[in-house]
Amino acid sequence: MITLKKIGFIGIGLMGKGMSLNLLKAGYPVTVWNRTESKTKPVVDAGAKLAKTPKEVAENSDILISIVTGSDDVKEVILGENGAIYGAKKGDVFIDMSTISPIATVEIAEELAKKGVEMLDGPVSGGVIGANNGTLSIMVGGKEKVFEECKPILEAMGKTITYIGGNGDGQVCKAVNQILVGTTMLGVAEALVFAAKAGVDVERVHQAVSGGAAGSWQLTNNGARLLKDDMSPGFKIKDYLKDLRIIMETGDANKMPLPATALVLQMFRHCQAEDMLQDGTQAVVRAVEKLAGQKLVS
Amino acid sequence: MITLKKIGFIGIGLMGKGMSLNLLKAGYPVTVWNRTESKTKPVVDAGAKLAKTPKEVAENSDILISIVTGSDDVKEVILGENGAIYGAKKGDVFIDMSTISPIATVEIAEELAKKGVEMLDGPVSGGVIGANNGTLSIMVGGKEKVFEECKPILEAMGKTITYIGGNGDGQVCKAVNQILVGTTMLGVAEALVFAAKAGVDVERVHQAVSGGAAGSWQLTNNGARLLKDDMSPGFKIKDYLKDLRIIMETGDANKMPLPATALVLQMFRHCQAEDMLQDGTQAVVRAVEKLAGQKLVS
Repeated sequence: MITLKKIGFIGIGLMGKGMSLNLLKAGYPVTVWNRTESKTKPVVDAGAKLAKTPKEVAENSDILISIVTGSDDVKEVILGENGAIYGAKKGDVFIDMSTISPIATVEIAEELAKKGVEMLDGPVSGGVIGANNGTLSIMVGGKEKVFEECKPILEAMGKTITYIGGNGDGQVCKAVNQILVGTTMLGVAEALVFAAKAGVDVERVHQAVSGGAAGSWQLTNNGARLLKDDMSPGFKIKDYLKDLRIIMETGDANKMPLPATALVLQMFRHCQAEDMLQDGTQAVVRAVEKLAGQKLVS
Repeated sequence: MITLKKIGFIGIGLMGKGMSLNLLKAGYPVTVWNRTESKTKPVVDAGAKLAKTPKEVAENSDILISIVTGSDDVKEVILGENGAIYGAKKGDVFIDMSTISPIATVEIAEELAKKGVEMLDGPVSGGVIGANNGTLSIMVGGKEKVFEECKPILEAMGKTITYIGGNGDGQVCKAVNQILVGTTMLGVAEALVFAAKAGVDVERVHQAVSGGAAGSWQLTNNGARLLKDDMSPGFKIKDYLKDLRIIMETGDANKMPLPATALVLQMFRHCQAEDMLQDGTQAVVRAVEKLAGQKLVS
């Protein structure tokens, strides 16, 4: 009989809820903690044990997973007062699945290493739907041996699981993903408003260009939303701005010029100025529309 | 018995050769003219009639197709000395399949209308392979009734044929296509060099991000070329610069700000500066590499 490893899970938000439920479904014993305790209810109802602190989560687990908001949040739950590090024992593995700075990730991994605790960074893409359905893409940094040990656990939450390289490399990969998402989306917005400004039927244009060398996930999916003037979030601007800040910080630290991503960020500043943080990233079209004095859909 | 319309074909270049051969294969009688006459040989060998001037082509055809380089070339073969307009009769249709300015297209259509000649703009995407295999995408502007009449002829050359709107609207759609191609490509180059600069395995990153919300034709196809440091052209920078000029002129005429496309153009200026006009558009990575002091593939 195989004894499944005990899993700790910190961060029962929109993402963490589906992910921890999928771990329970796969048969793992799960102990959870969340800053707002009430949010853990559906997971506790499904069989998870509730801990009072991140430290207590670590005391009750072999593998600790965190998915919280930013670098500071990860540092707090792991290294802060009553942090998970104080409940960890040698040989434990911490998998941080938040999207945070690759540099902060390396710093945390170094702190954990002093206690003999391994770390993986495993940021995800695929959103709440992917979290609920267990179809996330997971981009993993850390030692390959540790990755292989933890792979079955990651497979309970995700579908496309790629080992990238050492600590922080999963975060770099996620940053690459977000550079691509934003630059492609801005191009889609600019191209479609260009058509509207020229007085051309944007639906027909969208249809004509989607299948060839101009095609992209953003054009097909967020482009279709734009044609319905639908700004509802697949991915919220609030969260994307956080990712853009990480990318720009990493560019600064690595001396990497990012002219296209910098432009994307400046266009999203309009969405900040207009308080559109809860809209989906396709709403960057509002910045293009404003500049052009032209609505895409009238 | 159906009598197939007589087709005139002006411009037997890399694209026009495959396209005119496909018309012959479909059974149409074809008369051709090309500035450099020797290039017409394979098409004449396949059964086309050779004319001495664009005017003579028009005299021998009901439907005249042109695919030449720029707006000025189209104007010259249609409206210039011995131009096709002087051989045209009322009821003829001119289909310009070159990629030129939507504004020039409307001007030419107006001149032709004075003689009772209809015009369609039908710029294509799909490259030489699409021209040879008859799988081009064709984006059509002009009267819908005229489009319907000419559709069987377009179907002999292309696969995805979309009616967009009035004269020039096919060209606007092509411009949209090229905005998308360039903005997406620059994002791909910047994202992958970002990974390289962070010391991360770019092949693994490419694999991890290609299937999801970051995915695009450019990432899959030109991204794979970049990983092999392969700058061979699917589409040449020389031709793309021409298209960017059309887009920027159209933006000027329509008062449409194009910040993302403007950045793309400035990055391609590096390719001009380094005399890379015969390389494929993925070679815009050289500009990103130069700025970053980092080769993508070492």
